[in-house]
Amino acid sequence: MTYCVGLKLNRGLVMAADTRTNAGLDNIASFRKLHTWEVRGERVFIVLSAGNLAVTQAVIADLDEAMKAGGGTDGEATLTSVNSMYQAAKLVGRALKTVRKSHTDEGLSGDAFSAQFIFGGQIGKEEPRLFHIYAEGNFIEAKSDTPFFQIGEHKYGKPILDRVVGRDMRLGEAAKVVLLSFDSTLRSNLSVGMPIDLVVYNKDTLAIDRLRRIEKDDPYFSKLSATWSEQLRKAVEKIEEFDI
Amino acid sequence: MTYCVGLKLNRGLVMAADTRTNAGLDNIASFRKLHTWEVRGERVFIVLSAGNLAVTQAVIADLDEAMKAGGGTDGEATLTSVNSMYQAAKLVGRALKTVRKSHTDEGLSGDAFSAQFIFGGQIGKEEPRLFHIYAEGNFIEAKSDTPFFQIGEHKYGKPILDRVVGRDMRLGEAAKVVLLSFDSTLRSNLSVGMPIDLVVYNKDTLAIDRLRRIEKDDPYFSKLSATWSEQLRKAVEKIEEFDI
Repeated sequence: MTYCVGLKLNRGLVMAADTRTNAGLDNIASFRKLHTWEVRGERVFIVLSAGNLAVTQAVIADLDEAMKAGGGTDGEATLTSVNSMYQAAKLVGRALKTVRKSHTDEGLSGDAFSAQFIFGGQIGKEEPRLFHIYAEGNFIEAKSDTPFFQIGEHKYGKPILDRVVGRDMRLGEAAKVVLLSFDSTLRSNLSVGMPIDLVVYNKDTLAIDRLRRIEKDDPYFSKLSATWSEQLRKAVEKIEEFDI
Repeated sequence: MTYCVGLKLNRGLVMAADTRTNAGLDNIASFRKLHTWEVRGERVFIVLSAGNLAVTQAVIADLDEAMKAGGGTDGEATLTSVNSMYQAAKLVGRALKTVRKSHTDEGLSGDAFSAQFIFGGQIGKEEPRLFHIYAEGNFIEAKSDTPFFQIGEHKYGKPILDRVVGRDMRLGEAAKVVLLSFDSTLRSNLSVGMPIDLVVYNKDTLAIDRLRRIEKDDPYFSKLSATWSEQLRKAVEKIEEFDI
């Protein structure tokens, strides 16, 4: 499995993904699931992926090659040429559909090639935007009621997000909450594993300057995890015991 | 869905279940999923159920009728006659198998009749024991490494149990943590709903004296939920912000 979270806040975006992939229980590997593209000062994109790794890698590679080729011979749209994040999300959705179709055309079941993305970024003067792109290639956008998306093994880490995330948070605070959500997931589920890739994107900078890989022995993360355990226990103590 | 938790601690058992059942999203009802039997001073049993309601109700009814009939004409074992919790768990597992078989014999798929139980109790001088009974009728017992079982929608409420539960907790403290685990689940998942049925069983009392239904407007639970939100936010604040 996988765990990815994307937050869209007033001050920008916070997006993170784990790196564990597994086929069965004894075939575990580490692959990057967070990818970024940047045309400095003009546009940035961040994509988090879950699902069949062959599919997600192919989608990223197709988008990447099309962009580098400048849109191909017939000048079709690429992430570099589109004028809005909505158009960009459509490109990602279409790329996903194309890859899945290339497999199912051969008579294979579509379920095995399922994949999902959280896709965020900013183009020019448009606000930063965040999308959840489904296996079918369609998508929804984060609006003011729901400032975050999760894909993969999302349940363990949802309660903390549900309670704490607000659109007006500082980005450093939001990154901390995202890491707490990862910490809960990592403790309770074997299929999600370190390192974690994390991007903090400050609105209107149009540059990916705050990207970090958090390794297993990362001092900040270790401290966060230990402090959180301690603080949770204290929080529990603050509540009256139940007496029937 | 359903959410049930059972804890086996040094001082006794804490077991709880929600009451929501649903067939689709617009057919929601409230049914008790926590059942108890007591032969005061001699034996107590508590069972939590998840899965197909027709199956779980039939299993409970079969066990109940057999007990009341005193074992039937051929004097077969019942929950009132067995001498150990292990034998009692075998009876519950067998009753589940029998009910499921009666449906699948008619050519229906077994998956639709899937059900699971958490089964705890104490017989005479034996220690209190706790079992997780699978859909297949076999089971595992809680031992010192793993003092709790969950069935149903278990992921949201697992992180708090993973971090806080220890076998040496006071029962009132454990009941509080169980309710926190429910609170997280209720907030994040629609298929789990109040009221919650909760039993706190003090070792060697051989009586079910502490059984309570916690309704939606229960003052303790409301306060627990509010305090927990507040304390969680404070706990988050105690952690340094992330700065890349």
